[in-house]
Amino acid sequence: MNPETRTAAPACVAVATADSRYDILIGGALMGDPASWRGLPAAAQAVVVTNTTVDALHGDALRHALAPHYRQVSTLALPDGEAHKDWPTLNLIFDHLLRHGADRKTVLFALGGGVVGDITGFAAASYMRGVPFVQVPTTLLAQVDSSVGGKTAINHPLGKNMIGAFYQPRRVICDLDTLATLPARELSAGLAEVIKYGPIADPAFLAWIEAHLDALLARDRKALAHAVKRSCEIKAWVVGQDERESGLRAILNFGHTFGHAIEAGLGYGEWLHGEAVGCGMVMAADLSAALGLVPADFVDRLRRLVERAGLPVTGPALGAARYLELMRVDKKAEAGEIRFVVIESLGRAAMRPADDALVTRVIERHCAPA
Amino acid sequence: MNPETRTAAPACVAVATADSRYDILIGGALMGDPASWRGLPAAAQAVVVTNTTVDALHGDALRHALAPHYRQVSTLALPDGEAHKDWPTLNLIFDHLLRHGADRKTVLFALGGGVVGDITGFAAASYMRGVPFVQVPTTLLAQVDSSVGGKTAINHPLGKNMIGAFYQPRRVICDLDTLATLPARELSAGLAEVIKYGPIADPAFLAWIEAHLDALLARDRKALAHAVKRSCEIKAWVVGQDERESGLRAILNFGHTFGHAIEAGLGYGEWLHGEAVGCGMVMAADLSAALGLVPADFVDRLRRLVERAGLPVTGPALGAARYLELMRVDKKAEAGEIRFVVIESLGRAAMRPADDALVTRVIERHCAPA
Repeated sequence: MNPETRTAAPACVAVATADSRYDILIGGALMGDPASWRGLPAAAQAVVVTNTTVDALHGDALRHALAPHYRQVSTLALPDGEAHKDWPTLNLIFDHLLRHGADRKTVLFALGGGVVGDITGFAAASYMRGVPFVQVPTTLLAQVDSSVGGKTAINHPLGKNMIGAFYQPRRVICDLDTLATLPARELSAGLAEVIKYGPIADPAFLAWIEAHLDALLARDRKALAHAVKRSCEIKAWVVGQDERESGLRAILNFGHTFGHAIEAGLGYGEWLHGEAVGCGMVMAADLSAALGLVPADFVDRLRRLVERAGLPVTGPALGAARYLELMRVDKKAEAGEIRFVVIESLGRAAMRPADDALVTRVIERHCAPA
Repeated sequence: MNPETRTAAPACVAVATADSRYDILIGGALMGDPASWRGLPAAAQAVVVTNTTVDALHGDALRHALAPHYRQVSTLALPDGEAHKDWPTLNLIFDHLLRHGADRKTVLFALGGGVVGDITGFAAASYMRGVPFVQVPTTLLAQVDSSVGGKTAINHPLGKNMIGAFYQPRRVICDLDTLATLPARELSAGLAEVIKYGPIADPAFLAWIEAHLDALLARDRKALAHAVKRSCEIKAWVVGQDERESGLRAILNFGHTFGHAIEAGLGYGEWLHGEAVGCGMVMAADLSAALGLVPADFVDRLRRLVERAGLPVTGPALGAARYLELMRVDKKAEAGEIRFVVIESLGRAAMRPADDALVTRVIERHCAPA
């Protein structure tokens, strides 16, 4: 990373929903910058929720940054991985908060990737019916997607993110330095969500990603800064219009209906969420083509990009019937009818149902034989 | 009960918060009145959540009423009692919803007392990040207090109602007929919350309760209708000004700080919530007198009324130190300082801290020796 960029002012993207307003700060060395932490809600106590892997890398930096602002700063390091985004792990947070005498003003800091952010956000939404929390995402996926917009949740054995709340953080601090230590597999997983914003909202951004994918994979600071900023801008724009996903917001789930089926079918944690979304986007693009909405070469274009990003483009061999069964419990389904996010035209997405037969053919084209 | 009152139009109390508005209907025979169920959110599926006791008494009536409005009506009867207001029971609701293919539009109906209402409300708040729900309270306590205002929660072994959400129902249907089958002990428990509204908000209502307590205990329909309506009016007025308990709403917890300590100290379910609140109000009134806010004869007046209502006025022998320890994890506590709801003058309550020594003397005056 280039040292002189560390002194550049961070980018700031504002998120405004009906009853909350907060900033996403994006830049290098934000964790150590006192300005990142000023003006948060006052409290006697802060609790850092993280996982054991991230704690070892960034826990001390965050605790050091918080020490001047809170009388007591405690840390709870959860086990690492999507398999732990569940009830028992959520209860570890409640146990910690109660044992440390956390009150209604206590601020939670979610330091980690999407799993830590989602579970900590839901804990913050539910503890004493709501305490403030701050997202400090340390993965590309969390910085461009899960930490922004206030969707919090845990998984249920019968479906991903089935139990949760819409609950906005007070601030999101995307310190690009944390991406330096990110495993390559997780960098690729994050790129899936970055790529997503192109087809659903911004054809020019899609072309930019194609042109800068090598720089992104090489963790070029300037390229990462732009990718995170543009992704957050698009997400903030969508969430500002439809916080509760009564309409527009659903387009952010492009690739997620197929993706969730992959994750649930294999057991959470087998594929990374971004890997499932990457493969799911190729399937959703093919479905869009099969519905006559986009030309077939769009499917090829997207598949090439997903593949170049280091993501799988062939789904696991669950069998089409199992895919359909899993997709019917997707949150977007209504009365058992699956609703897919499809690309209507490049840069514009919409929700559509689709015939089982058509979906089956898409699955069979893109998945290993059962 | 008097048959001709069954045809009287139900009373209607409106609740209006920043982003929701709903009605509380109060009257006889509401369950069987088609008008009670008109205009609720449309959905393919309704799920009745109740407990085994209430299901046997009122389940069929509710299912019959809902049948014309939903393609599928299923029932989940939970085990009965405050001891089951916990994670494992909440998970029974999520399991049921997922196994029945409940989607985001599915409407939950909470048929029962405070436990059923609180746990079903939290399930509705969290399932797929929020589905609509309707309260059908069948106890006096739920009709005058817990079903109104959107506080939902479950208990944690270290504290009552520690995990929950502010989540408003779409309607509250208080069918006074359900009070006919209510055990006497639960009727008394409900009267504790009715009595509460007098000291905190309405001296004339306190005098009315004193004059009509025998009629209420005899389940006189007209007296019950007035008690439920006036209680709901006061609660709706408070909640409309402060849904999230950032200030005024806390006065509704008069007697609850001591009461929660009794419940937690004995183990949830040993004393009914209303019993603990009744005894807790006497202690909170004594604390108000000890702080020089109200004359000593107010304490006697309130104790006599609580006692006449069939409620305990002597707390269990937990020892003052244990009471204080339990109260320090109360949700109203801040940085370990307990904040009590006290009566400043008859009809007006406020939040105050108090010296441990003073509180200890209050506990020792009103509790059996440890």
